[in-house]
Amino acid sequence: MSFKYFENLWNLWYTELHNGTAGLTLKIKKVLYSGESKFQRIEVFDTYEYGKMLVLYGSIMFTERDEFIYHEMISHVPLFVHPSPEEVLVIGGGDGGTIKEVSRHPGVKRIKMVEIDQQVVEISKKFFPIMSKGFSDPRLNLIFGDGAEFVKTDTGKYEVIIIDSPDPIGPADVLFKEEFFSNAKKRLREGGILVAQTESPFYHPDIVKNTYSYLRKLFSNVLMYWSWIPAYPSAMWSFCFCSDKLHPLKNFREEKYMELGLETKYYNKGIHFGAFSLPTFAEKLI
Amino acid sequence: MSFKYFENLWNLWYTELHNGTAGLTLKIKKVLYSGESKFQRIEVFDTYEYGKMLVLYGSIMFTERDEFIYHEMISHVPLFVHPSPEEVLVIGGGDGGTIKEVSRHPGVKRIKMVEIDQQVVEISKKFFPIMSKGFSDPRLNLIFGDGAEFVKTDTGKYEVIIIDSPDPIGPADVLFKEEFFSNAKKRLREGGILVAQTESPFYHPDIVKNTYSYLRKLFSNVLMYWSWIPAYPSAMWSFCFCSDKLHPLKNFREEKYMELGLETKYYNKGIHFGAFSLPTFAEKLI
Repeated sequence: MSFKYFENLWNLWYTELHNGTAGLTLKIKKVLYSGESKFQRIEVFDTYEYGKMLVLYGSIMFTERDEFIYHEMISHVPLFVHPSPEEVLVIGGGDGGTIKEVSRHPGVKRIKMVEIDQQVVEISKKFFPIMSKGFSDPRLNLIFGDGAEFVKTDTGKYEVIIIDSPDPIGPADVLFKEEFFSNAKKRLREGGILVAQTESPFYHPDIVKNTYSYLRKLFSNVLMYWSWIPAYPSAMWSFCFCSDKLHPLKNFREEKYMELGLETKYYNKGIHFGAFSLPTFAEKLI
Repeated sequence: MSFKYFENLWNLWYTELHNGTAGLTLKIKKVLYSGESKFQRIEVFDTYEYGKMLVLYGSIMFTERDEFIYHEMISHVPLFVHPSPEEVLVIGGGDGGTIKEVSRHPGVKRIKMVEIDQQVVEISKKFFPIMSKGFSDPRLNLIFGDGAEFVKTDTGKYEVIIIDSPDPIGPADVLFKEEFFSNAKKRLREGGILVAQTESPFYHPDIVKNTYSYLRKLFSNVLMYWSWIPAYPSAMWSFCFCSDKLHPLKNFREEKYMELGLETKYYNKGIHFGAFSLPTFAEKLI
């Protein structure tokens, strides 16, 4: 039976609804994987428009076509602000996209990554060679475990901590709690930066509001930045830049940015600054 | 038969596909209008997530929930740059959203609007009172006709011209042609500004590329600015700022912006500047 014949008989569509009444729908070429880990349902689809994509817990984690936006924005913004980010801690991010970007910074000496679900890493290595190339970086120390537990007991100190969590449903719920942020902060070296993904200000105003109110109690500088990400709910996504000492605009290291000359597809100096200009409704929210 | 009963029997979904393999899907409460004008198919749906929306030619023109982004961005950016925008010409924009925003500028003395499809205006007045309130502005001169023909024969001169066209399929095709832009430019007073919506750099790279190459031949300053618009294809949308004399950042009139103190939901001073910072892939495209 040829694939053509197969396609003429029926169509497969992935539809991700947000609030049950609006969503993104993608035509699927092929189901590459569908299974369950100890923690969550995992699917890999090959789509016509967005290339291959990873779906965890019924949410698109990334697509090959647009992953660069999220991973560039969560990594390069803090790494081009901190004057010498040598030790970096990544909580979550099992698909490898974030460490792929972090590992492009030669000044980073050690990357520690704590991912709860080993199977996500294995799936990424199997189906997404570009995403997972950070896993072969010799600076990487990959730990399988609960990020919330890890920051409670770890004794390491980091210049930059990146919270690359999925949505606060399922296993990632604890990564949006005040206690977690407070423990994570204790792992920051003085003057360090914590960055977290903070959902969509358009679709998840309550999560955003709560998260920023927790973070404001902990850090002197708490600034939202945002990007457009087409495969995410509402396609507007936010990140939080937190530091007691550093300011993302005043402390942007232009020389380092020019010197490295990273080839990026979304992030650049203009975007670094522009991303902190919020639409009025998002400004009011936080 | 109660509405509840109706809903239990079946569901109505509007799905707008882009390139045939990816799209936005919205659950519909009610079909408010479905018909055809002399020019195009017209539908008005009441959706659960985005409120009421207008669909022309199978493309969402606006939804009540997100229309503010497009209309604020296409109007306030040029109007807060030109030092005295007294005469404004709007081509298209039959739904009234653009003139609703233009009419908030007290310095504007006359607004001429040329819309090809009278029925769009009537539908907007009937179903979208907030969108269509600009129609009652005494400064408005509403002309029903072909925008491309109008700029060929008109003898008026304008400080600001806004091209608020639908996608370049169907009746709006001519509004993306070099000849149209060239004729429109002749209607600009010296030092005037022309702004056009220029589709999605992510989904429509060829249209964007061609449009900017036409505009670059005509104007000294041709700058893309962009916004996130959730109900539009890919949710990333671009606009083009064109002028021979004025620069959108260097000539931003901060005093006027502060003095007017418009209550907006998306546009603000930070967004005015940030919107001109393009993602790298969009920068490369043009």
